[in-house]
Amino acid sequence: MVDSVRLDELSWPEFAAKIAAGAPVLLPLGSTEQHGPHLPLNVDVVLPTGVCERVAREVGGLVAPTVNYGCKSMPRSGGGEVFPGTLSLDAHTFSLVVRDVIRNLVRQGVRRLVVVNGHYENCWPSVEGLDLALREIRREGITDLVVMRLEYWDFAQRATLDRLFPEGFPGIDLEHASLLETSLMLVLRPELVEMDKAPTDGPAKFPPYDRFPVPDDFGLPPSGVLAVATGSTAEKGEWLMEDYVTRISAAMRREFGM
Amino acid sequence: MVDSVRLDELSWPEFAAKIAAGAPVLLPLGSTEQHGPHLPLNVDVVLPTGVCERVAREVGGLVAPTVNYGCKSMPRSGGGEVFPGTLSLDAHTFSLVVRDVIRNLVRQGVRRLVVVNGHYENCWPSVEGLDLALREIRREGITDLVVMRLEYWDFAQRATLDRLFPEGFPGIDLEHASLLETSLMLVLRPELVEMDKAPTDGPAKFPPYDRFPVPDDFGLPPSGVLAVATGSTAEKGEWLMEDYVTRISAAMRREFGM
Amino acid sequence: MVDSVRLDELSWPEFAAKIAAGAPVLLPLGSTEQHGPHLPLNVDVVLPTGVCERVAREVGGLVAPTVNYGCKSMPRSGGGEVFPGTLSLDAHTFSLVVRDVIRNLVRQGVRRLVVVNGHYENCWPSVEGLDLALREIRREGITDLVVMRLEYWDFAQRATLDRLFPEGFPGIDLEHASLLETSLMLVLRPELVEMDKAPTDGPAKFPPYDRFPVPDDFGLPPSGVLAVATGSTAEKGEWLMEDYVTRISAAMRREFGM
Amino acid sequence: MVDSVRLDELSWPEFAAKIAAGAPVLLPLGSTEQHGPHLPLNVDVVLPTGVCERVAREVGGLVAPTVNYGCKSMPRSGGGEVFPGTLSLDAHTFSLVVRDVIRNLVRQGVRRLVVVNGHYENCWPSVEGLDLALREIRREGITDLVVMRLEYWDFAQRATLDRLFPEGFPGIDLEHASLLETSLMLVLRPELVEMDKAPTDGPAKFPPYDRFPVPDDFGLPPSGVLAVATGSTAEKGEWLMEDYVTRISAAMRREFGM
Amino acid sequence: MVDSVRLDELSWPEFAAKIAAGAPVLLPLGSTEQHGPHLPLNVDVVLPTGVCERVAREVGGLVAPTVNYGCKSMPRSGGGEVFPGTLSLDAHTFSLVVRDVIRNLVRQGVRRLVVVNGHYENCWPSVEGLDLALREIRREGITDLVVMRLEYWDFAQRATLDRLFPEGFPGIDLEHASLLETSLMLVLRPELVEMDKAPTDGPAKFPPYDRFPVPDDFGLPPSGVLAVATGSTAEKGEWLMEDYVTRISAAMRREFGM
Amino acid sequence: MVDSVRLDELSWPEFAAKIAAGAPVLLPLGSTEQHGPHLPLNVDVVLPTGVCERVAREVGGLVAPTVNYGCKSMPRSGGGEVFPGTLSLDAHTFSLVVRDVIRNLVRQGVRRLVVVNGHYENCWPSVEGLDLALREIRREGITDLVVMRLEYWDFAQRATLDRLFPEGFPGIDLEHASLLETSLMLVLRPELVEMDKAPTDGPAKFPPYDRFPVPDDFGLPPSGVLAVATGSTAEKGEWLMEDYVTRISAAMRREFGM
Repeated sequence: MVDSVRLDELSWPEFAAKIAAGAPVLLPLGSTEQHGPHLPLNVDVVLPTGVCERVAREVGGLVAPTVNYGCKSMPRSGGGEVFPGTLSLDAHTFSLVVRDVIRNLVRQGVRRLVVVNGHYENCWPSVEGLDLALREIRREGITDLVVMRLEYWDFAQRATLDRLFPEGFPGIDLEHASLLETSLMLVLRPELVEMDKAPTDGPAKFPPYDRFPVPDDFGLPPSGVLAVATGSTAEKGEWLMEDYVTRISAAMRREFGM
Repeated sequence: MVDSVRLDELSWPEFAAKIAAGAPVLLPLGSTEQHGPHLPLNVDVVLPTGVCERVAREVGGLVAPTVNYGCKSMPRSGGGEVFPGTLSLDAHTFSLVVRDVIRNLVRQGVRRLVVVNGHYENCWPSVEGLDLALREIRREGITDLVVMRLEYWDFAQRATLDRLFPEGFPGIDLEHASLLETSLMLVLRPELVEMDKAPTDGPAKFPPYDRFPVPDDFGLPPSGVLAVATGSTAEKGEWLMEDYVTRISAAMRREFGM
Repeated sequence: MVDSVRLDELSWPEFAAKIAAGAPVLLPLGSTEQHGPHLPLNVDVVLPTGVCERVAREVGGLVAPTVNYGCKSMPRSGGGEVFPGTLSLDAHTFSLVVRDVIRNLVRQGVRRLVVVNGHYENCWPSVEGLDLALREIRREGITDLVVMRLEYWDFAQRATLDRLFPEGFPGIDLEHASLLETSLMLVLRPELVEMDKAPTDGPAKFPPYDRFPVPDDFGLPPSGVLAVATGSTAEKGEWLMEDYVTRISAAMRREFGM
Repeated sequence: MVDSVRLDELSWPEFAAKIAAGAPVLLPLGSTEQHGPHLPLNVDVVLPTGVCERVAREVGGLVAPTVNYGCKSMPRSGGGEVFPGTLSLDAHTFSLVVRDVIRNLVRQGVRRLVVVNGHYENCWPSVEGLDLALREIRREGITDLVVMRLEYWDFAQRATLDRLFPEGFPGIDLEHASLLETSLMLVLRPELVEMDKAPTDGPAKFPPYDRFPVPDDFGLPPSGVLAVATGSTAEKGEWLMEDYVTRISAAMRREFGM
Repeated sequence: MVDSVRLDELSWPEFAAKIAAGAPVLLPLGSTEQHGPHLPLNVDVVLPTGVCERVAREVGGLVAPTVNYGCKSMPRSGGGEVFPGTLSLDAHTFSLVVRDVIRNLVRQGVRRLVVVNGHYENCWPSVEGLDLALREIRREGITDLVVMRLEYWDFAQRATLDRLFPEGFPGIDLEHASLLETSLMLVLRPELVEMDKAPTDGPAKFPPYDRFPVPDDFGLPPSGVLAVATGSTAEKGEWLMEDYVTRISAAMRREFGM
Repeated sequence: MVDSVRLDELSWPEFAAKIAAGAPVLLPLGSTEQHGPHLPLNVDVVLPTGVCERVAREVGGLVAPTVNYGCKSMPRSGGGEVFPGTLSLDAHTFSLVVRDVIRNLVRQGVRRLVVVNGHYENCWPSVEGLDLALREIRREGITDLVVMRLEYWDFAQRATLDRLFPEGFPGIDLEHASLLETSLMLVLRPELVEMDKAPTDGPAKFPPYDRFPVPDDFGLPPSGVLAVATGSTAEKGEWLMEDYVTRISAAMRREFGM
């Protein structure tokens, strides 16, 4: 018998047995997006998938296949659509994907579900997709479903951030392709990280508004790295991963009564 | 520098350089669907992704992230939506995903594109998604794009099928979770195949129509395996893979003038 | 009192009475598409409508108005959209039409429904439209509906095909505007058939993939006739029609318990 | 060679030749809707199709296949959706059908187009469908298209109405299944008219608002005939048909410069 | 405590209390559209909002925020989209807005609802939006909702129109930016009316069909005023307003059993 | 001549003249949403509209009609949909409204546009609506458009926030119905503020995830006020307003080259 936390590595009878036994399912939402010259385009796929797999092992859950394409990147949070390598879905498309996958998971008997987002611009269309699914599910007469939806990075402890940024945490807004993501990639896929290419043209200095077309002097570092990636290490990545896994697992146990 | 045929394992400057140099891109379309008690739910993700990666190595191409959720399974071709483990998108959703990904690839400069489908019910909504993308692309004034769209299994030679089925090829229609797919999985992900669980309740004997609700005596084997999986070997899988890679590569060289 | 199997030739009290008495309804799905120089554009409307009317007479059913515009034609199955005369709907539009008509039929009390498709590229979006309707119908609490969905050509007996093609049936894939459709048109609308214009530039020799834009040497006969139409006769058409009517009627009696 | 004003009775070379020669195309928009106990459900298909065919003969035009299902019936203009036999599309679906058909006609080279509506509730979604098509067509760079859109009943002369209603025309609003439509059906499909069943429970006396759910005392005659059908004759129908054909033809000649 | 008939000027506990007490809600549907050189673009917002507020005071109801953007203007009823200042929504967008707002009002406990339309081209998409909402509401199991939908101008008495137009009412069709709307604006927002700019280039003389592109000689007065605005006075506006308020209130009392 | 910064209070010739002269247009995006027991439901309409009007006066711009219904409220930022009085649109609907209004403004000649959002959950669907509009506009060949998109609250100076919150700014996340919004309402619509009802049950203490259904102990104050409103004054509101108007005007001058 295959032993895997990845739902799609099970056969259907194995899947059915786990769900019947109450296994919670984690759904990672990713994207294919530029992450600077030192990181691959799949950062937002690798990180939430990696978090989900570790949490699933911790709590006896299953990880659904990752949604590999996310919602459009914005200049002020991800560099934007014009960057090479960014391949995004329209918000409506992305919401429908989330709706369909959630509706199907619930149709298959899942009653404990965690949507784990790994790409900033997915937040709102994933909320929408979830709401559309819940509306339909309610009309099916299903009332025993509990769903959590989260951005994994919100589970870092304040103390951990202080430890990572002794001179003060610059805020999650600019953490695109920067110290946090780079350190986590050094944990999960170190062979894809090229620290010698980590740029020093940041941090970004954006005005408090979007502007189209994006002007050359908009404050976006040419590298696409919004803050600073230098100093990233696998050790720092493990500090973060520890926070994410411990605290997401704890929240799941609390909400699901496990 | 990372050396990978997977587009999403490159950084954006590496991606940009490859595309500028004319690298063709292969886009695998998968699904998460029951494939009998001896195969995992990810067969339709593993197989087209595996084919694409081998072809990409052969022709100097790149493989885009796989679309992991496919269009709804039908009883007569995949067992249908009621089987445990099948997690599908509506046709409209799937078409929009295909449209958005293709539109973005072309916006990023890709001019040689191959859509490689690995799930029967994706055929038509992938055609639609491609058509919707091409309609928009045309209006952008882009005229030098060449796109191929294919089901990988159509590239097996007649001789190979005769060799695999000495008593006559029963036809591709019932090849769901059967000898071809099982043999290919033994090549690509043997640790996920449990040959001892390969069922013998097939082949399916369907009437020439759909019927809803699906009655118990519709002819669908309870295992979800539409034909027969026994006799599958990695060697047979290699025969098929050889055909797919050689012949898809040849077709790409011809159509793209490479 | 008007005596007609066409639902739309009845007045509303006549319609209501027939439905209340349990009459099954057949819904023909057609298209307006090139069918070579010897056949009119309405072949895919005439044939399923004709089959439905004969079946309805046999089983005491009613025929709903035909959907006259179908889903986009593809080069390898119908010549494609660039052929003069082909007028198609987007897949999403077509699915919504099917959904709306089925939802309305069921709302009107129909509980035995047969969707009879006459255009290859309608298969999948008609499946989708039916699925969307069934999802809504289920939420209305209707549980006694039985629906069949079929392509009429799948009801030819093997023996009949052998009789029609003494040298071997070339397969349904290329039967666009060819011997089967031409013979059936000679039964139903002979005045619209110009046998002297039946071309001899076929059969089509397609590669196993789609390619856009469609190149000149794609293997598509300039006439748009994918196989061969010569030798078509009304007598052969009657053989086929006999199969379709007898066997669809039998399947309906079985599934509907009539 | 087939001689027909029905576009779909031509082969593709015949269609192509006529369009290349500048033939205008008329697109009839119908519905399947209750029309009282004395008329069939297809009145709104038969009448605009009949008008189009006569106009086409007059001006050398072609008639596209009729859209057989129309937009939802409203209680105050057609009796409403709850009447048996009424089978309608959502407004969005209907608009997409109109958009797709018009876009395809123009893609096929049609530059003189007349959309002829025969069902009151189609007016606005047909306007919308036409607008959506024109928006796309403009972006294709096509600038020589002229489109007319009309309700055929607006082409009756005042004098003809005075002759038909010596005591004063009650207004087009209540003319559903009443004298005008019944007389026209007596011209086009007399075998489907049962004058002995023409009801006398009208005319409708509606309040100046919609109300849902529709109450029993809303003023809707139980027959579904909003005004009065008695006195209908084929002769009167010919007066109207004469007006429609003459005046629509004249308008086409003027607008198309023919 | 704030005393206002405007729902959005209440706090949520005040809103909740009023709805719990059975207060009917009026939803005004407006548009931003040219209304000649003497009237502002907001006429179709001001008038239905003003009517709703007066009716709400009369019957103890609440007025929901006005939908400020309406469905596309047509040349024969509003001058059309090419007129400067006309800012419209697609029909589908507008219907979805109406659907969402109604669904939310009902979700919030509203069971007596009046949709008050103030822009001609909103009629049909507001019907559609209401129907889409009712379809969903029905599936929620809500059965005690009563909805009215109306165009406010349909509540003028025949006697009032005769008094306003001693030489005969030219019909509501051409009343865009003309005597009725101008007089009503003189009641509600006189400071926005510039009677000295009221044009005299009307009335419009349209042919009985739409034509695209709109030709110069289509009969549309260059001012955008379809009939005649001269002679408008606040006194006349009060006559109309009196009719609207009295008669809409009476209809609400009757339908809602208040 | 009417002198107003509200676009919809102008006649069409006045509007056309201002746009031709290069006037920038500000589009306020609001919502109808609970804002505690001391504030009305229209806070998110009043505030961005008020900001826009003051900025428009400063820079010679025009304010388009406010979008009165916004995207769904979330528990952690606005209390959520279950709060009485919250009336929201689906994200897709809201995006289409934004798309249509922007497309129309640009069609009408506007080339300097500022989208001013006043409701947190509108941020992302307004980005999407803008992107959809820009995609269409680009295909129209329009290249001289400059658009800004902003949340007005991002224009407060750090120094002002420090002055308002001497003990430290708790962050914008919880500023729903709290000190900032209440103070601004005291500037713009003081008669709608009931300071004596300002609650003291906050601030909210949310976990770092969404959870559905929302449990009673989720940390949401029953009042719907996420932080603290006590201490709000019109004077403080003026400090903020001064920042918004001065700095948004400055940004517009810079980006529009005015």
